[in-house]
Amino acid sequence: MTTTVDTDKTPASVPTAPTPSPEGTRAYDLDRAHVFHSWSAQGALNPMVIAGGRGSEVWDFDGNTYLDFSSQLVNTNMGHQHPAIIDAIKAQADILATVAPAAANLARGEAAQRIVAKADAHFGKVFFTNGGADAIENAIRMARITTGRDKILSTYRSYHGNTGAAIVATGDWRRMPNEFARGHAHFFGPFEYRSEFWSTSQEQECERALQHLERVIVSEGASTIAAILLETVPGTAGVLVPPPGYLPGVRALCDRYGILLILDEVMCGFGRTGQWFAWQGFDVVPDLVAFAKGVNSGYVPAGGVLISESIANEFETQVFPGGLTYSGHPLAMASIVGSIDAMDAEGVVENARTIGTDHLGPGLAELAEKHEMIGNVRGLGVFWALDLVDDRESRQAVSGGVILQLKKAMLARGLLPFSADNRIHVVPPCIVTPDQVAQALSIYDEAFTEVEANL
Amino acid sequence: MTTTVDTDKTPASVPTAPTPSPEGTRAYDLDRAHVFHSWSAQGALNPMVIAGGRGSEVWDFDGNTYLDFSSQLVNTNMGHQHPAIIDAIKAQADILATVAPAAANLARGEAAQRIVAKADAHFGKVFFTNGGADAIENAIRMARITTGRDKILSTYRSYHGNTGAAIVATGDWRRMPNEFARGHAHFFGPFEYRSEFWSTSQEQECERALQHLERVIVSEGASTIAAILLETVPGTAGVLVPPPGYLPGVRALCDRYGILLILDEVMCGFGRTGQWFAWQGFDVVPDLVAFAKGVNSGYVPAGGVLISESIANEFETQVFPGGLTYSGHPLAMASIVGSIDAMDAEGVVENARTIGTDHLGPGLAELAEKHEMIGNVRGLGVFWALDLVDDRESRQAVSGGVILQLKKAMLARGLLPFSADNRIHVVPPCIVTPDQVAQALSIYDEAFTEVEANL
Repeated sequence: MTTTVDTDKTPASVPTAPTPSPEGTRAYDLDRAHVFHSWSAQGALNPMVIAGGRGSEVWDFDGNTYLDFSSQLVNTNMGHQHPAIIDAIKAQADILATVAPAAANLARGEAAQRIVAKADAHFGKVFFTNGGADAIENAIRMARITTGRDKILSTYRSYHGNTGAAIVATGDWRRMPNEFARGHAHFFGPFEYRSEFWSTSQEQECERALQHLERVIVSEGASTIAAILLETVPGTAGVLVPPPGYLPGVRALCDRYGILLILDEVMCGFGRTGQWFAWQGFDVVPDLVAFAKGVNSGYVPAGGVLISESIANEFETQVFPGGLTYSGHPLAMASIVGSIDAMDAEGVVENARTIGTDHLGPGLAELAEKHEMIGNVRGLGVFWALDLVDDRESRQAVSGGVILQLKKAMLARGLLPFSADNRIHVVPPCIVTPDQVAQALSIYDEAFTEVEANL
Repeated sequence: MTTTVDTDKTPASVPTAPTPSPEGTRAYDLDRAHVFHSWSAQGALNPMVIAGGRGSEVWDFDGNTYLDFSSQLVNTNMGHQHPAIIDAIKAQADILATVAPAAANLARGEAAQRIVAKADAHFGKVFFTNGGADAIENAIRMARITTGRDKILSTYRSYHGNTGAAIVATGDWRRMPNEFARGHAHFFGPFEYRSEFWSTSQEQECERALQHLERVIVSEGASTIAAILLETVPGTAGVLVPPPGYLPGVRALCDRYGILLILDEVMCGFGRTGQWFAWQGFDVVPDLVAFAKGVNSGYVPAGGVLISESIANEFETQVFPGGLTYSGHPLAMASIVGSIDAMDAEGVVENARTIGTDHLGPGLAELAEKHEMIGNVRGLGVFWALDLVDDRESRQAVSGGVILQLKKAMLARGLLPFSADNRIHVVPPCIVTPDQVAQALSIYDEAFTEVEANL
């Protein structure tokens, strides 16, 4: 079972001693008494207490500070407590915290405009949600209604959220206990390092993955398929950067069979890959886009669907049968405006790109040269994975115990890591500096050295 | 089609002229250009602009002020911009806006403790979500896993949220276009004014509704049913206050057949009925409770599931397969703490109860005596519905056109109404004053007089 080292509970799931300060103790005790945690057996938890943070750092109540190379759940693209976003939230809090979705509200219009402006010209409108899962829900709903078809194709290596339709679209272990809906089929995407297609090159992996997808489309019945739903760069599944031709190939299949393309940019959007939207680096334009996390670094819960003009037009006269109380919530909208404006002003997307090409990319490659355990390094921008193996030849994944040792060794050196399955994901905020990257690389290096010595 | 007067787009969906101020014009224009709205055909919209609010009032950019008898989407139980909640949000914004769910955080523990303290002793833990829909999702998930059964029974007259499983549990028109899941069956709850059971008294309606429910349980197969999911007082469906014996009767059926009882308190909880939790007025204790809206008046998107100790214990060693990035979001948690503490300090729940018994109850009854169109008045606390009919004998519902005229007449007199189907819901904040109730009653009276004169 991989759950002990999995995903949404990653940043702080490593057992640490309860902090001794009164506030830390109170936070810990109240948590254990009354808070039910995601994706966990409750009895085994020993949560780390986080009291505050700034930029790429967080700390507890006892003054222990950590370099946050998890971005929490890969959402604090602007780091912690960016003053422009905090100021925007506080200013809106003084004006109007909440309003019904049916009213027009200035903050909401400004946020929608900012998001549309970063996308390709064929996008015109935004439907706001509370997070990524309900963004996926509504993108699926739009695709089903627009096409009159039921089925959604998505990959086995994917995560799309935790609500009824979204979780069944998910490919990883979190789907099976939640598999109560129909209308979903799964296929394999390209993943050269662990190919499902016996390929021996990136070009071959791409070609075979597209051929496999077309076989699934035909076998499921093209006329039953509303949409293909893909994370542009699958994230929790392992930062699976698609080969150059893959997404254009998927787009071509969609066009051939009258299928819509939904890209899930919840994790990979808003700077994470060094682009405003990840698809902008892959020569493809989707029909619908789900976003959340990086749009406002999660300072207020928010997500949404970016909708092409042609799909939005389908609902000019037809009622869209979806909605939620906090759609376009003013406080969330203000934080989006504050965040996008600050990202623009500070060149944060460009920073993420440069960090990837000039610092993390070469630095992690060097780390892999030193440590046999690192079987594969992949990523771009501030979105990287180290695929850890017992043996480079067989590519056998390391055990959960090894991951746990690595996380402990990193935490002990003041770095908050992110792990999933047999991987360490290197996912700092987009504002991370070259110095912080150097510091993190040094901590990773020491941690690998320590754990390798114990094996 | 009832959609033109429905629910989530109610408070501000009545066409008004775009406001002429530059800010109002910009808010309106950006909205029309880039914002995709809930539950609507986009082309027909002419949204009212809301610029700000305080207490039971909202205003636009041109100084037009409205008495908010919608509580937006029946969520601003503490009214707009309550200083204690705004201060709590701003204070937390200065400390830490966001943190991953796996960490312990003081604001989250404090919020969970506050909520548990208001419930019956057998509740111990809270799982936080972003709103009501994902609270329902997770309550359903807990019930399915705990019982090992798939099916959820819910009523036709219900609304439980808009995500994949929640929308299929829904009974009203919003279910049908979203019906992609299995494992749900529907039944009729008690509703004396429009009885499905040919009953002629409240006692008979209660008895027959319970007999009907037991017939559905047996016919669906008791051993296939994980939970019965009910709004304690169904809200959007028409403020259907259950007869005294109904909920205890449902509880008894649940116990007889090993079925869990999930109460949806998203709309009716946190003061709306004059109780902290609506169930506390109906001699019943549920196993799981979904909440949102009133828990923090929606100032920051938040919801959650209140979990009995025995169900929480099921997940001590077993992994709970659910989660979301913003579970227990610090900013949302701080607003919950601020709101519950202020509700306590100011006796807001008691105020809602007194407003119901001493002001709204008698006042609406008097209104019904004057206006033939009001076929039925029902409710409690600050949670009332006027069931409008063409004819008191046949109880034929008025048309959507009549509702639209009423809403226009009320808006013109400075009251923001809430309508659903053939009803006006009278749902002011829990902090509403007797003077404001008197003012609203007078506006309702004038609006009915005007519209009746035009018929």
